[in-house]
Amino acid sequence: MLEKLDLEQKLPKDEYNQAMEKLGLRLGQVQRQARDLKRPVIILFEGWRGARRSLIINKMMQEMDARGFRVLSSLEVASDEPCQPFFTYFWKNLPAKGHIAVYHRGWYYLKNYREFVDKENKQVDTTTEHINAFEKTLVDDGYILIKFFLHLSRKKQKSNLIKRSKTLGKAWKDKYSTYDDSDDYDKYLECYEKLLEATDTAQAPWNLVTADDTRSAQVSVIGTIVDILERELTVQPKAGEIQRSTELYDVLSRVDLQKTIAKEKYKAKLDEYQNRLKQLQIDLFRANIPAVIGFEGWDAAGKGGAIRRLTAALDPLGYVVHPIVAPNELERQYHYLWRFWSRLNVKGGRVTIFDRTWYGRVMVERIEGFAQPYEWQRAYDEIKDMEAQWADSGIAIAKFWLQIDKDEQYRRFQEREGNPDKQWKITEEDWRNREKWSQYEEAVNEMLVRTDTSYAPWTIVEGNDKYYARLKVLETVINLFEEKLAKRK
Amino acid sequence: MLEKLDLEQKLPKDEYNQAMEKLGLRLGQVQRQARDLKRPVIILFEGWRGARRSLIINKMMQEMDARGFRVLSSLEVASDEPCQPFFTYFWKNLPAKGHIAVYHRGWYYLKNYREFVDKENKQVDTTTEHINAFEKTLVDDGYILIKFFLHLSRKKQKSNLIKRSKTLGKAWKDKYSTYDDSDDYDKYLECYEKLLEATDTAQAPWNLVTADDTRSAQVSVIGTIVDILERELTVQPKAGEIQRSTELYDVLSRVDLQKTIAKEKYKAKLDEYQNRLKQLQIDLFRANIPAVIGFEGWDAAGKGGAIRRLTAALDPLGYVVHPIVAPNELERQYHYLWRFWSRLNVKGGRVTIFDRTWYGRVMVERIEGFAQPYEWQRAYDEIKDMEAQWADSGIAIAKFWLQIDKDEQYRRFQEREGNPDKQWKITEEDWRNREKWSQYEEAVNEMLVRTDTSYAPWTIVEGNDKYYARLKVLETVINLFEEKLAKRK
Repeated sequence: MLEKLDLEQKLPKDEYNQAMEKLGLRLGQVQRQARDLKRPVIILFEGWRGARRSLIINKMMQEMDARGFRVLSSLEVASDEPCQPFFTYFWKNLPAKGHIAVYHRGWYYLKNYREFVDKENKQVDTTTEHINAFEKTLVDDGYILIKFFLHLSRKKQKSNLIKRSKTLGKAWKDKYSTYDDSDDYDKYLECYEKLLEATDTAQAPWNLVTADDTRSAQVSVIGTIVDILERELTVQPKAGEIQRSTELYDVLSRVDLQKTIAKEKYKAKLDEYQNRLKQLQIDLFRANIPAVIGFEGWDAAGKGGAIRRLTAALDPLGYVVHPIVAPNELERQYHYLWRFWSRLNVKGGRVTIFDRTWYGRVMVERIEGFAQPYEWQRAYDEIKDMEAQWADSGIAIAKFWLQIDKDEQYRRFQEREGNPDKQWKITEEDWRNREKWSQYEEAVNEMLVRTDTSYAPWTIVEGNDKYYARLKVLETVINLFEEKLAKRK
Repeated sequence: MLEKLDLEQKLPKDEYNQAMEKLGLRLGQVQRQARDLKRPVIILFEGWRGARRSLIINKMMQEMDARGFRVLSSLEVASDEPCQPFFTYFWKNLPAKGHIAVYHRGWYYLKNYREFVDKENKQVDTTTEHINAFEKTLVDDGYILIKFFLHLSRKKQKSNLIKRSKTLGKAWKDKYSTYDDSDDYDKYLECYEKLLEATDTAQAPWNLVTADDTRSAQVSVIGTIVDILERELTVQPKAGEIQRSTELYDVLSRVDLQKTIAKEKYKAKLDEYQNRLKQLQIDLFRANIPAVIGFEGWDAAGKGGAIRRLTAALDPLGYVVHPIVAPNELERQYHYLWRFWSRLNVKGGRVTIFDRTWYGRVMVERIEGFAQPYEWQRAYDEIKDMEAQWADSGIAIAKFWLQIDKDEQYRRFQEREGNPDKQWKITEEDWRNREKWSQYEEAVNEMLVRTDTSYAPWTIVEGNDKYYARLKVLETVINLFEEKLAKRK
């Protein structure tokens, strides 16, 4: 793609001034429009060192309103925590609805950096498949993503870098050590070509800009942004089609809810498991292996009790429990997966526990109509890709579905209502959800089939007997941790 | 204080179980109450190494609902960015209304750590005055702050630490290097005594707990929390009194608005200043000196234009502009200073620009009644302490008041309304604010007098002539940066 570009292009100063005056006004207008329409925008700059991206971005910023506008750079994440999933920084810094994020360098830079410079560190690289999945999940959700690659001739790059080092001495941004694509132009040209090809998708195509002449690059960049925004803002984000067959699955009816364990045996085992977990947490910490443990299940299925038996064994600094309820006003300003990425903490072998999870998308949001069919249907893929990325980074993942039958739920609801210390645990909503039991059953069955993967398998917990359920949870977590540690050795 | 404690105290297991059962229920209840009443709570644990704080905290957590509950530790900030103001982490992690933050170790630990371990690094320590000011600003705002010091006998500490190292090998938390208060018990005892004395204030008194017997410590901690919360939740946060004289100040009327500069001279100077700034930004980056620049002024006084002339000279990665409007729903869940602490970024000599600032508290919030008199009156002290902390950390601070007269504002409003490209800049609210000109004048005069300090002085900018104003802003920033750099050498 790059070799076909005309690098000789030049823009005289007066033409530049004229063009810029018009573009500046349009850019300001279209920015206000994007804000009013609450569309989030991501503008990504990638390309050669020495392409003078700062001059280009600053020109653009001068024409825009600083409100709702941020400049970010993946230079900052170059040396991230080990086990931090690749896209964490980009998820956490997603622009809210109506806001703009500008990446001075983005995920492509980070990928190259990890590949060419940071091999010895343990931070993982990503694949172009994950990149495409990440971009698709944003665009599908209504994000406007504009990707620029700033191309430069060999000759111009050399002269720009020499000029820069003369003015600045050791260039100030070199504090973050960077890979030097000027020392072997041909090698990097080939690498960029491949990367561009693999990621030039229908949902997020590349805009290639020749930057030998900075003025013409500025006009080209701002012109492209204005064109794309003007076009995108006149169309409604398109509703996808239903892509899936409506086949019915059946997993839950085969769960054997008769399983029980005697109280005495439970107490002994609980003690044993908790001591084992205590030691495993220390081992995980030493091996720097973080874990994510997600709990789903019927209301009153015993999630809270199981979580408490698990955390009782853990050091309070080494775990955190995130109870997930309906998204709040802030969270609704972002992609639905944002709040889970934001809560992920991999520092020092942390255990992150979710009491209800991102699977709300394909359960309550599906059933209550908070997500459209095309939204929850594509969520299976979005969720699997997220979990795959986490697993690729070395995170241990367990997902539990706590199963009880309808009669058992009724007994527990009654018990809660009869006990003044437990009344707060039961609400009108619980009774309303119960009425939709069979709808939930259908959704849960589909979820358990579609999102059961080797890297993030579902464990179905027979929950009518609380003792049995709690031990199964602890045992599963112990096995997961032991396997992870064994693999690491 | 510590030497008077009875370290022999012991609690038999059955008494412990009885007490815990009752306390557990009360703790759960009072937690739900705090949530319903939207009171934020901070529980702080300080004390000796080996006091088994993890066991104590975990017991407490088992009795509480994980919703709205976080465990934090200042171990994480032990090796923070240089120039990061001491309280940044604690401000950023403030619990929202109705939430609870538990500090496994808090600001006292961090202070000791910086004092005893981290001397060679450049992170700054804090003073007990700043600690007391920090705690006061929280408590005044309705935060419930519960401080525990876990005391331990010399003998018990030794045996606990030996036991720990036997179970865990090298204790896992030692990854974060910590200071060792067991090697010189007497020295640290004296140091703790002094620190406790200096910070045992009416608004935030210490709760001293003897931790030789873990069971009795658990009961004592949970009992204290329950007692304090039950008491605090029955009283309304008290409204403070008016502490200030209502003297009138007059600064603005003495500003000479006749100052102008010719266009040609302006252009030449602008060029010169911007080039100078470009170089200074690189020098600041190398010297690792961050800066905060705040802009206040009348509507249409030219803040935006001045900021753009300033940022045009800066590398986009090295600055950020935060436009400040009314706090959103999320921000209203916190102390009014939270959103400014959260936006502070000192990494690599960053320039953080605020387009309107924390002074909204003593201007618009005062005038519109969003803050009560006792609230905006104590804000002068709160703000000065925040700025002093920033300055103590090595941050360069400039504050601008852009002054125009009422006629000039009228001309500019008219011009905006007549120009389709500028209409969006003027709203009904601007006209409404204009009607309150004299009230604002009174508030601004008081603000300019009360918060003009050596470490964060106000620069009043004569703004009727935009050219003059912009150059004065640039010149002031240049001088500030040059002074800072000269001092560093």
